[in-house]
Amino acid sequence: MAKINLTLDNLNEVFPGNFTQEQIAKAKTLFLKRLAELSHNYYKGKMQTIPKAPVIGFNWFNVWYTPGVSKISTEIRDNNELSYELSNRGNLVAVVSDSTRVLGDGDVTPPGGLGVMEGKAFLMKYLGGVDAVALCVDSRDKSGMNDPDKIIDFVKMSQYSFGGINLEDISSPNCYKVLDTLREECEIPVWHDDAQGTACVTLAALFNAFKLADKKMEDSKIVLFGAGASNTAVARIMFKAGADPKKTIMLDSKGGLHKNRKDIEDDPRFYPKWEVCTATNPDCVETIEEALEGADALVALSKPGPSLDPALVKKMADKPIVFLCANPVPEMYPYEAEEQGAFITATGRGDFPNQVNNSLGFPGILKGALLTNATGITDEMAIAAAGSLAKFAEKRGIKPDNIIPSMQEHGVFPHEAADVAMQAIEDGVARKTLTWDEAYNQAQKDIELARNMTQKLINEGYIQQPPPEMVDEAFDWAIKQVS
Amino acid sequence: MAKINLTLDNLNEVFPGNFTQEQIAKAKTLFLKRLAELSHNYYKGKMQTIPKAPVIGFNWFNVWYTPGVSKISTEIRDNNELSYELSNRGNLVAVVSDSTRVLGDGDVTPPGGLGVMEGKAFLMKYLGGVDAVALCVDSRDKSGMNDPDKIIDFVKMSQYSFGGINLEDISSPNCYKVLDTLREECEIPVWHDDAQGTACVTLAALFNAFKLADKKMEDSKIVLFGAGASNTAVARIMFKAGADPKKTIMLDSKGGLHKNRKDIEDDPRFYPKWEVCTATNPDCVETIEEALEGADALVALSKPGPSLDPALVKKMADKPIVFLCANPVPEMYPYEAEEQGAFITATGRGDFPNQVNNSLGFPGILKGALLTNATGITDEMAIAAAGSLAKFAEKRGIKPDNIIPSMQEHGVFPHEAADVAMQAIEDGVARKTLTWDEAYNQAQKDIELARNMTQKLINEGYIQQPPPEMVDEAFDWAIKQVS
Repeated sequence: MAKINLTLDNLNEVFPGNFTQEQIAKAKTLFLKRLAELSHNYYKGKMQTIPKAPVIGFNWFNVWYTPGVSKISTEIRDNNELSYELSNRGNLVAVVSDSTRVLGDGDVTPPGGLGVMEGKAFLMKYLGGVDAVALCVDSRDKSGMNDPDKIIDFVKMSQYSFGGINLEDISSPNCYKVLDTLREECEIPVWHDDAQGTACVTLAALFNAFKLADKKMEDSKIVLFGAGASNTAVARIMFKAGADPKKTIMLDSKGGLHKNRKDIEDDPRFYPKWEVCTATNPDCVETIEEALEGADALVALSKPGPSLDPALVKKMADKPIVFLCANPVPEMYPYEAEEQGAFITATGRGDFPNQVNNSLGFPGILKGALLTNATGITDEMAIAAAGSLAKFAEKRGIKPDNIIPSMQEHGVFPHEAADVAMQAIEDGVARKTLTWDEAYNQAQKDIELARNMTQKLINEGYIQQPPPEMVDEAFDWAIKQVS
Repeated sequence: MAKINLTLDNLNEVFPGNFTQEQIAKAKTLFLKRLAELSHNYYKGKMQTIPKAPVIGFNWFNVWYTPGVSKISTEIRDNNELSYELSNRGNLVAVVSDSTRVLGDGDVTPPGGLGVMEGKAFLMKYLGGVDAVALCVDSRDKSGMNDPDKIIDFVKMSQYSFGGINLEDISSPNCYKVLDTLREECEIPVWHDDAQGTACVTLAALFNAFKLADKKMEDSKIVLFGAGASNTAVARIMFKAGADPKKTIMLDSKGGLHKNRKDIEDDPRFYPKWEVCTATNPDCVETIEEALEGADALVALSKPGPSLDPALVKKMADKPIVFLCANPVPEMYPYEAEEQGAFITATGRGDFPNQVNNSLGFPGILKGALLTNATGITDEMAIAAAGSLAKFAEKRGIKPDNIIPSMQEHGVFPHEAADVAMQAIEDGVARKTLTWDEAYNQAQKDIELARNMTQKLINEGYIQQPPPEMVDEAFDWAIKQVS
């Protein structure tokens, strides 16, 4: 049997010739999960801490630690803002979750989110040059219920140790209260990647999709399928970026959102949904069939599919834009949508064209915020990041099956960081100002350092290569499950 | 003017010839503080995060992150203990402080402790091969008072992200409640370095001092000067290690501790002091003069000195053992004590012989606890660490001015870690068992990796050398202040 390269780059070529597309997809997922298990165990996780300052002789510990360090304590005591200059705080983000809605797996108990949050910390450093720490917190009260106030207290207590907070995978409706309270009350940026993050990257993709379809977003009819934290944030940010609420229809599992949805009005914990109810869908459309009639774009961000009949695409206007972003299984498969006439499709997955992937957003956005010691991340900064991503792709050329950068195009991140930093200054949330070039150069330098340093440690054996037998074991196991 | 080597190893040779000892001491401290300020600003802190697992092609992000990582979430959800194998948790410590009693500087506001806690994280990795994160938390309630329950909640919420907690620089009496509650209620080891840590290293020094004086600790009269978190822990652990409470006298700023000290009995927040009152000093000795009459050892851990008349040493028994551990200025200078007949002196400072330095303890102790996925650190584990330190020094030879290892003797840490791990297994707090050799080899390997990796990054320029001008600037400034 053909074996897999250690780089995993020939993965699509090594499955048995008699496997169907469906079997290949299934085997691939099983392989990646099994390899994740083996390799996380092999490396015992994936992030570590190391000095970023040298020890040139032991006397330097008198500088980095006592007695010299006393001066750092008193300087920061007398001016808290110096903590950004005299500690690593200014380049450090906490990735905070209570592990109650982790990817497709739901509530996985507090330590269950560590793999994902460490992964986020990995991407933060490797793509954005930002140091990050995974904090999976226990938000359960004495009765075992997850209490949003506990996460709020936790983040507020820890905010002086970090330059920013990336909230992640907190179940709804708790996530709304957590994010909005913390954005209001913290002195540092609090970013909810499932909401603003997804919205930013989705908006970038929409910008270029409309461009290719030769339509204007503000004139377009847009249908949002799914009404969780991510799609409600897509709506809010899309409207701020110019989309017309009156031409927008959002649907949840009970149907269209509109001003007569008493069930939503009556549960104040879901206030972002109620805001959508009052602003959109003036005709109180109830069904997805009706909603898609003449729609220019569909943004589906719902539960794992399949959940939508591909034939629905036929109801849409000319050159339909169809984003099918449920993970791991989209609402319909993109090739099914294309068979029904979709002009552009996008998904959350890396194995189809146009991956709408949060990893394009948060490393650059948080880097940009940190470069200015920002006090917050405004929606306008998220929109600036979306514009940055769209423009970067446009410059190197876009077409229907390639509308946004992939995270391998690492040149995109310093651009995004610099654009976000400039928006932070414009929005008055920057504690520190710098020019676009300064921001770009600093981001570029930090990202290059992170990548080169990691590569060096691999080349020199300080980070070991994965054993080929481990990769083969995972592959053989996956093939066996599917055969 | 002679200039300082970048290694700072000729520091004692470069001061102007006409400087007195006092001027040199003052200039040295000023130099180290100024260099700390300049170099913390130059490097923007001193710790960073990086991957410990490789990226060999971008497809590995499908393993380290979604979709593969989903398997990590569900595995840990189904068995929380797997978090030690599948995330970095098993080798990760949080250094937690509310910055209310930072070194000699007291309350420095929440971010004020970042320099010290990052320094601790630095030592944790460099000496113990343990990853560590600085968390300076805001423990103030709405009225601005520091509330111990807030730190307790914070640590309990974050415990699933770490293998251990190192509490640090929390003011008394809050620290007592925080430590004892967390030791009771957490599933991971909670170590209070100011208390157990100081006690461990002090005990190691006492072991070898008594050995050199040819006395038995259990027969000796011991005076403890100062009754804060550290000396009350010294008392508790010393008694468990064999010292006789009836032959012990502790004094605070109001005089001897004994059963008639109503003021201490009436304030339950200071319960560890009351425990000492009831167990020691049966004759109700009130003054330090009386207490030292015929004493074999003095352990002074009080406020910055000078605070004790060197002539007091004359009242002590034959071969007086005199530990003067206030920082930065000891209760009396060791050479003054020696002039009065002290047989062995020790201080907390690196510029006198016999430095009683916590850095000898926590990296090895926490490494040992982590190697067994321990649920706690018992006093017996601290005593095992003290024995390990004492034995290591004894093997390579001890004499009155060299009773314990220095932190440059890096061979001591894997020994200490292995001895602590064995004690954890014996005490029933180990979730994982291994042999002494296995523990030693793992610790040795991790510590070597940390040191070699740091050195490699310096040699290759990923961590820059400090600019010589910066060192000179700090030196010239210090000389000017003192001249």
